[in-house]
Amino acid sequence: MTESGKPILYSYFRSSCSWRVRIALALKGIDHEIMPIHLTKDGGQQFSEEFQALNPMKQVPALKIDGITIGQSLAIIEYLEETRPTPPLLPQDPKKRASVRMISDLITAGIQPLQNLSVLKEVGQENQLPWAQKAIISGFDALERILQSTAGKYCVGDQVSMADLCLAPQVANAERFKVDLTPYPTISRINKTLLALEAFRVSHPCRQPDTPAELRA
Amino acid sequence: MTESGKPILYSYFRSSCSWRVRIALALKGIDHEIMPIHLTKDGGQQFSEEFQALNPMKQVPALKIDGITIGQSLAIIEYLEETRPTPPLLPQDPKKRASVRMISDLITAGIQPLQNLSVLKEVGQENQLPWAQKAIISGFDALERILQSTAGKYCVGDQVSMADLCLAPQVANAERFKVDLTPYPTISRINKTLLALEAFRVSHPCRQPDTPAELRA
Repeated sequence: MTESGKPILYSYFRSSCSWRVRIALALKGIDHEIMPIHLTKDGGQQFSEEFQALNPMKQVPALKIDGITIGQSLAIIEYLEETRPTPPLLPQDPKKRASVRMISDLITAGIQPLQNLSVLKEVGQENQLPWAQKAIISGFDALERILQSTAGKYCVGDQVSMADLCLAPQVANAERFKVDLTPYPTISRINKTLLALEAFRVSHPCRQPDTPAELRA
Repeated sequence: MTESGKPILYSYFRSSCSWRVRIALALKGIDHEIMPIHLTKDGGQQFSEEFQALNPMKQVPALKIDGITIGQSLAIIEYLEETRPTPPLLPQDPKKRASVRMISDLITAGIQPLQNLSVLKEVGQENQLPWAQKAIISGFDALERILQSTAGKYCVGDQVSMADLCLAPQVANAERFKVDLTPYPTISRINKTLLALEAFRVSHPCRQPDTPAELRA
C-alpha cells in the first residue's frame, strides 16, 4: 500500500494476467495506484531483487493490499471478491460458480501459460507464432463448446463474472497472435459486448500508464 | 452420477490434476466411483467423442456430481468446498485463503501446464526431461520462498488446505522428472508429512483401479 493506504497493482500494460485484475479493480471501484513492471526492459524488471522480494514468482500481476502482497490473478480476484463483494464477480449459485471457475481455470491454466512470454522464449523465434496459435486454438475449441451451454449475455448468464475478466484479455492475445476467430462466434460476441463496458475500456492495454505512445488509443 | 446417485470421477492414475481431486474426495469422505480414462491408450481415451461430449477440454479430471459435470481440478475442489464444507480445505481468514489460492494457482497454472503430457509431446523426445525440469525448478524456487512465510505443518498454517492437494502431486511429478529436491527443504518436509495422511495414501497414483500391476504399491 502507498503511504495514503491505497493498494498498489504491479502491472505490465500488455500482460493479459494483469489486465484481468485491472478489470476487477475497475468494476469494484477500488481506488489504487499502478506500478508498471516492464517485462522486457532491463532484461525484465520482474527479475530485479527488489521485485522478487515482493513476488518470488517474478511475474505480474501482484497486488499490495491490506498489508499483504498477493500474486496470481485469480487468487487476487477471489480475495477482492471476498473482501469487497460489491458488485459480485461470482454468481450466488454454487453450480454457476463452478462454471465461472472452470472457464477461468481453462483460460488461466489451460491456455495462457502455454503462450506467455517466458515459454515463447524457450520454443525459439520461428516457432513462436504456430506454438501460441496451437495453444489458443485448442483452448478456444473447448471454450466455445462450453460457452454454448453456459453463456447468456456474458460467459455465465447475464452478469459479468470472473470468467469474463479472463476472456477478454485472452481474446486480445489471440488477436495479437493472428488466430482466426471465425470458428468462435460465442467467444467473439461476448468479447465485443465486454469491450464496450467502461471497466474493460479503462483497464485496456492501450490505455495504461506504461503503454508506449505508438500503441495508445 | 451413477444410477445410485454417486458422483463419478473421470481420472487417470498418473495425472497429478486427477490426484488433487481424489485427495479432496477422500478428505471430505465423499462416496464416489472412479471411471478411468487412459491418456495414452487408444491414442488417448480423452479424445473420444463420448468423453469430449462430457468434457470439451479433453482432459482429466472431470467430476459428474449433483447433475452437472465440472472440469478443471481447482474449480471442482472449490465446488466441493462450497457444497460439502466439512472438513474445510480453505481457511476462514481471507488473507490465508489468498495464500492458499496463490500457492494452488502457482502450481496449477505456473508449473503443471508446462510439464504435462500434451506439451511434452510438442517439445520433442530429447527435450522433454530438461524442459519439464526447468518448469518445475523455476516454480519450486518461488514456491519454497513463499512457503517459508506461509507454512506451518502444511503449506498454509497447520491445517491441510487446497494448496497441499496441489503440492504432493506436483512433488511426485518432480520426482518422476528427476528434479533434485535438495534445494527445497520446506517443500520436501511438507510433502513427507502429507504422504503419511490416509487421504493422500488411498488416492495415490500407485493405488488406483487403473494403476498398472508393475507400478502398484
